[in-house]
Amino acid sequence: MLLLDIPSIQSIILSIGLEPFYSRLIQQLEDDFKHWQNFYKSPRHAIHYKHGVIELMPCSDDELYSFKYVNGHPENTKQGNLCVMAIGMLADVKTGYPLMISEMTLLTAIRTAAVAALGAKYLARTDSNVLCIIGSGAQSEFQAMAMKSIFPIDEIRIYDIDAKAMDKFYNNLTPEFNRIKKCESIAEAILNSDIIITATACKKKACLFKASEITDGTHIHAMGGDCPGKTELDASLLKKSKLVVEFTEQSLIEGEIQQLDISHIHGELWQIINKLIPGRENNNEITIFDSVGFAIEDFSILKLVYTLAQELKLGVDIDLIPDIDDPKNLYGLINNPLKRKPR
Amino acid sequence: MLLLDIPSIQSIILSIGLEPFYSRLIQQLEDDFKHWQNFYKSPRHAIHYKHGVIELMPCSDDELYSFKYVNGHPENTKQGNLCVMAIGMLADVKTGYPLMISEMTLLTAIRTAAVAALGAKYLARTDSNVLCIIGSGAQSEFQAMAMKSIFPIDEIRIYDIDAKAMDKFYNNLTPEFNRIKKCESIAEAILNSDIIITATACKKKACLFKASEITDGTHIHAMGGDCPGKTELDASLLKKSKLVVEFTEQSLIEGEIQQLDISHIHGELWQIINKLIPGRENNNEITIFDSVGFAIEDFSILKLVYTLAQELKLGVDIDLIPDIDDPKNLYGLINNPLKRKPR
Repeated sequence: MLLLDIPSIQSIILSIGLEPFYSRLIQQLEDDFKHWQNFYKSPRHAIHYKHGVIELMPCSDDELYSFKYVNGHPENTKQGNLCVMAIGMLADVKTGYPLMISEMTLLTAIRTAAVAALGAKYLARTDSNVLCIIGSGAQSEFQAMAMKSIFPIDEIRIYDIDAKAMDKFYNNLTPEFNRIKKCESIAEAILNSDIIITATACKKKACLFKASEITDGTHIHAMGGDCPGKTELDASLLKKSKLVVEFTEQSLIEGEIQQLDISHIHGELWQIINKLIPGRENNNEITIFDSVGFAIEDFSILKLVYTLAQELKLGVDIDLIPDIDDPKNLYGLINNPLKRKPR
Repeated sequence: MLLLDIPSIQSIILSIGLEPFYSRLIQQLEDDFKHWQNFYKSPRHAIHYKHGVIELMPCSDDELYSFKYVNGHPENTKQGNLCVMAIGMLADVKTGYPLMISEMTLLTAIRTAAVAALGAKYLARTDSNVLCIIGSGAQSEFQAMAMKSIFPIDEIRIYDIDAKAMDKFYNNLTPEFNRIKKCESIAEAILNSDIIITATACKKKACLFKASEITDGTHIHAMGGDCPGKTELDASLLKKSKLVVEFTEQSLIEGEIQQLDISHIHGELWQIINKLIPGRENNNEITIFDSVGFAIEDFSILKLVYTLAQELKLGVDIDLIPDIDDPKNLYGLINNPLKRKPR
């Protein structure tokens, strides 16, 4: 069975390059969103604790089954630790055989950004070249690179309450972009931006800017509002915008739209991709992709890295499933221990 | 992060011996069943396909979170493959950090047998020395060895429609038991048995024996009836017996008791262990443990092997969680790839 550990995922991305990786991933996401109705979908399974949440996100079509383990423990950062970590698995539906276990902390950051780019492909103006990112935490560089794979981004304007986080963003991405501007306020950051990504971590009802501050024609990717009680946008802005979600049932609980009701949702992204409803219709409307993250997105990236690992012969072989001649003789493993394969 | 692959689990069991391993596991199960009400419990998440089922079984107390991936594809055996495979994970509740991934195909067989022994400890006559097992498939030897760790088993009587499966059982366990008798009928196998384990694989409503064939004082462990539409016992036998389950909500759907209603359930095993209701009260009653498998049992064995792997310094170290200095600089992993640790 295939294990993709952190070095495996790093090698896959290094081998083909981050931008080409994003192009393949956005293509994979688009293909899977086209077949949205063929997926077995269910809300995530979550256990909420005093200090955080632990979730399982399963998803499947008729060929592959995937799930992701993911936690959210905001206070981990105080001890210098990651607050979100994830592990994923892919299995064969016909036999139930597990095919792969993969790290998904990196993959979650990457797929979240790829979904943002896919949404923007259908909802932002095609000539968008000024990108604004509010919040330059762990997710921010991934968002910038994914947008770059779709749009001719010429300038990035960032804002964060933590100046060190802005420095980190600047240092990481200076080789990739012409202009990166560290702003002193949200108002300065959003000025003249074509695409605004809101990616703050604060777990409460926030309002990052007023509806009147947003210019016509802007696309907003609302990423940070992603659980009950956590929102980033003003209800009046939602009302005047074309608001798109991934999976209505889940977004009404977790998204910006939890402030309003279903009547304010234009539709789901897969419906736009399948041309069932329109995306952006002119250069004046304000569009919002109220993305909360859905299990199909994990499915898509797990499927892609599984394919790439085989193409590139990367990954580690592990003995996690018994390989025995007689399936009725499982007890033989106790009597006749296997030797671990040399690595 | 710790990986317990098949060789790791084999080494743990070899190091301490299967019977002592069962003793520790039954103790761990008993401890966890005593704290039944402190667990976060939820029904399994299942996706049913044409050829089988894939499930996630999560469970948690205030310290540890566990889940198991497990499939059931009965037709796999036709191709000489396992029909049930499982993988488990253990995580730290306070931080959400994953602690361990483990093979669970073997562990599921072992814990299922340990639960049978724990149930029998409270429901079978303490002098039980003749054990009957109907169905000598992958689970059968584990059941026999677990019972041996609690009861002075002197004779085992087995029956299976597949003579080769009986030979396999006989060959595997001849060193462990005084007498193993391969029987030619179920009627012959159950004759004079103190404990009867029903462990057939057939996925339909079956009736292995008549209520009148069961002697007073017998304990029946009904293991094979474990999903909707799959039962092994006669409703009239259930009615005349003291019937105990693990988790009523789940057993009413999956257990033998799906043939009747809640009024025929004596209680849950944890209630007997905690002396809230009586177990066996005399040598004449017929008792049935209608076991379907519950997530707490996976939790218990994962917790035990995690402890043992640390005590014995066994297992494989894998890089599945990013180890970075600045939790906000996840993107640094793309710019500065880690090297895999030497193994």
